[in-house]
Amino acid sequence: QLFELIEPLHPADVADLIEQINPAERRHFVELAGERIGGAILSELEEGLREEVIGLLGPEVLAEAVRDLDSDDVVDLLEDLEEEQRRAILGALDAPERLAVQKSLTYPEYSAGRLMQRELVMAPEHWTVGQAIDHMREREDLPSQFYHVFLVDPKMRPVGNVTLGRIMSSRRSVALKDLVEEVFRVFPATDSETDVAYAFNQYHLISAPVVDESERLVGMITIDDAMAVLDEEHEEDILRLGGVVEEASLSDTVLQAARGRATWLFVNLLTAIFASIVIDLFADTIDQMVALAVLMPIVASMGGNAGTQTMTVAVRSIATRDLTAQNALRVTGREAAVGGLNGVLFGLVMAGVAAVWFGVPMLAAVIAVAMILTQFAAALGGIGIPILLDRVGIDPALASGPFVTTVTDVVGFFTFLGLASLVLL
Amino acid sequence: QLFELIEPLHPADVADLIEQINPAERRHFVELAGERIGGAILSELEEGLREEVIGLLGPEVLAEAVRDLDSDDVVDLLEDLEEEQRRAILGALDAPERLAVQKSLTYPEYSAGRLMQRELVMAPEHWTVGQAIDHMREREDLPSQFYHVFLVDPKMRPVGNVTLGRIMSSRRSVALKDLVEEVFRVFPATDSETDVAYAFNQYHLISAPVVDESERLVGMITIDDAMAVLDEEHEEDILRLGGVVEEASLSDTVLQAARGRATWLFVNLLTAIFASIVIDLFADTIDQMVALAVLMPIVASMGGNAGTQTMTVAVRSIATRDLTAQNALRVTGREAAVGGLNGVLFGLVMAGVAAVWFGVPMLAAVIAVAMILTQFAAALGGIGIPILLDRVGIDPALASGPFVTTVTDVVGFFTFLGLASLVLL
Ligand SMILES: [Mg+2]
Ligand SMILES: [Mg+2]
Ligand SMILES: [Mg+2]
Ligand SMILES: [Mg+2]
Ligand SMILES: [Mg+2]
Ligand SMILES: [Mg+2]
Ligand SMILES: [Mg+2]
Ligand SMILES: [Mg+2]
Ligand SMILES: [Mg+2]
Ligand SMILES: [Mg+2]
Ligand SMILES: [Mg+2]
Ligand SMILES: [Mg+2]
Ligand SMILES: [Mg+2]
Repeated sequence: QLFELIEPLHPADVADLIEQINPAERRHFVELAGERIGGAILSELEEGLREEVIGLLGPEVLAEAVRDLDSDDVVDLLEDLEEEQRRAILGALDAPERLAVQKSLTYPEYSAGRLMQRELVMAPEHWTVGQAIDHMREREDLPSQFYHVFLVDPKMRPVGNVTLGRIMSSRRSVALKDLVEEVFRVFPATDSETDVAYAFNQYHLISAPVVDESERLVGMITIDDAMAVLDEEHEEDILRLGGVVEEASLSDTVLQAARGRATWLFVNLLTAIFASIVIDLFADTIDQMVALAVLMPIVASMGGNAGTQTMTVAVRSIATRDLTAQNALRVTGREAAVGGLNGVLFGLVMAGVAAVWFGVPMLAAVIAVAMILTQFAAALGGIGIPILLDRVGIDPALASGPFVTTVTDVVGFFTFLGLASLVLL
Repeated sequence: QLFELIEPLHPADVADLIEQINPAERRHFVELAGERIGGAILSELEEGLREEVIGLLGPEVLAEAVRDLDSDDVVDLLEDLEEEQRRAILGALDAPERLAVQKSLTYPEYSAGRLMQRELVMAPEHWTVGQAIDHMREREDLPSQFYHVFLVDPKMRPVGNVTLGRIMSSRRSVALKDLVEEVFRVFPATDSETDVAYAFNQYHLISAPVVDESERLVGMITIDDAMAVLDEEHEEDILRLGGVVEEASLSDTVLQAARGRATWLFVNLLTAIFASIVIDLFADTIDQMVALAVLMPIVASMGGNAGTQTMTVAVRSIATRDLTAQNALRVTGREAAVGGLNGVLFGLVMAGVAAVWFGVPMLAAVIAVAMILTQFAAALGGIGIPILLDRVGIDPALASGPFVTTVTDVVGFFTFLGLASLVLL
């Protein structure tokens, strides 16, 4: 009776359900469900679990499951499978679909060629509305979802797209050429899926043609898949900024998760030890005035937070292409000014707090100056480090954090303790 | 000649250009461009700049600009404008469009009712393909973009949707009812745009009907707008997690940006002072062993990083609805185990480092135990705090950070210095 409850659910919801139950329940569920686990559910399943679930299904069930999928979903499934499972699925496909899938797989991971489906509708550029309609009526294998007819020249190069709405509302004698959309983008199959998702979002594309190296039409990308890419890239950015470097999912085991987190904690340990070495330089100073040990984490923490703020704005703006070579200098100037301003503000506040707390006016002056310098350095590091990393081709979401923290910790401890040792002792 | 360069650009790219130049250039550009700034450019412009740009355009230019926009884009423009500018734009619209826009504005901000456009195609549920095609041929005011025909019952309630592709490829005598899509979602106008964006992404919707309180069809939401919402929500999450609390944009002035950052820095200052009070409790202990001041930031920093990792996973999983009441307990258990495991790992590493560095075996033991406890607390706080905040209706992306940092700082300093004062002196 469980399956009666599940029957009306969308495959995406069934996949979520399979993700959320525990591993033992999952195995049980999949074995019971068997052929009811269709291709749609498999392709909605998160990648970490697919191999496990596919392993539980027999080869015939699997072959049946993928037969109804669009070629892009088959490609997405195959990418992550072992050679043996891969061959079983490919064997279950009709020859044209198999060729399309194999063609897709020749393009690099995370490329437009991997994202495209071969199912599409095209028409010679000289056709009329009537010819297009007759063609669609006659074709047996129309895509289950399509929104445009792509016009191609005699060399099969896409030259324009016409929405079904325009075709539907025009007379049969009208030339398709006269109905093409103003906005038309063609993606080379080797384009990155990041660029594809950006363009769909920026230009409100719904579907777009993909071409091979000789500019021939080889597939179509639809916006639902571009939206999924955008969402995955968000996921990656947000997790990487939070120090979760490896691909992570809630269904990872304890060991997988612990290993995934440890890399970044290890990097952080190194930077923390480095900061402690800076503190150790001033051990004698602290020994003479313990208040320094009490206050120094405030300087570093405020610097770290200001640096993280700036870094987050920078990383996000680089991802949305709002921060460009054009305005990098101006934005850096603004961030430096913001850092200086908030440095002065919070430096003065902390000077007041320190004066009241420890009753040493010079200590108040030292913490004020240290905080101004640290906040300023945090701003410069927070904007400069992501920009530099991006220029040299390293993902700023991934690597900026440890660098920024190192800058703010070292500058924070060094200025505060250094000034104290000069002025106070 | 500048405008010749800009002519072929997509309005979204022109808007980006206007965002990226400096304020003086911007004013100059807009005044020169005048009527060339169409409605499409205005609606692509980020909200912080719209009022400024709209203020520079004359009322006639403005009225002309909005006339070609779909009603959802007009609503998006109007929401943020002063009463006077609002009235000028409304006055420029035809009566039916004006009514639709005013209706939309009666729904709460960030609702489906604000996101929908009134331009759509519907058909009585008993119509055939032929009737639908004739209707579309005859209508003068078809939407510029549409992908489905919505079927409505006699009370105007949407009962199904048919893709244009299915209509196009079916014979004229076929009943529309027999062509409806399996996946069909209807959104009440009061639904939040977050739920709408989630559903579009989860169910691969392309367009979907919106209904009013009496379930009558009042509008349509298209996936490009749902994609924009998803992107904005991600922006908000990533910035809030990074401590950028207020809406922020690269074109904010120094003062706007500084004020936006200061709120969160102030909260952080309070938590940092709180942590320093904990350190101050052990000032005598530190005075007797300065190595404690050198090592204590490592304990707190490793705890803070582990807490941020867990918190990031939790906040993201809550946003994607992967972390639910169903699996909260299991995920919390996993995070606790991960924290304990990495606590032991890094506790042992730091014990070794401390032993070599300071040559005091008991100090090594103290830092190991303190790190295990702190990492464990970080895991519990990192998962528990976002879940609790979400339950009580506070955005976990916004508020989790300060709480988690407070937990890790206080536990880190207290366990390390407390154990040291018990064991070492
Ligand atoms: Mg899912
Ligand atoms: Mg599909
Ligand atoms: Mg894949
Ligand atoms: Mg992929
Ligand atoms: Mg697809
Ligand atoms: Mg990325
Ligand atoms: Mg942009
Ligand atoms: Mg833009
Ligand atoms: Mg708006
Ligand atoms: Mg809005
Ligand atoms: Mg729209
Ligand atoms: Mg949110
Ligand atoms: Mg999900």
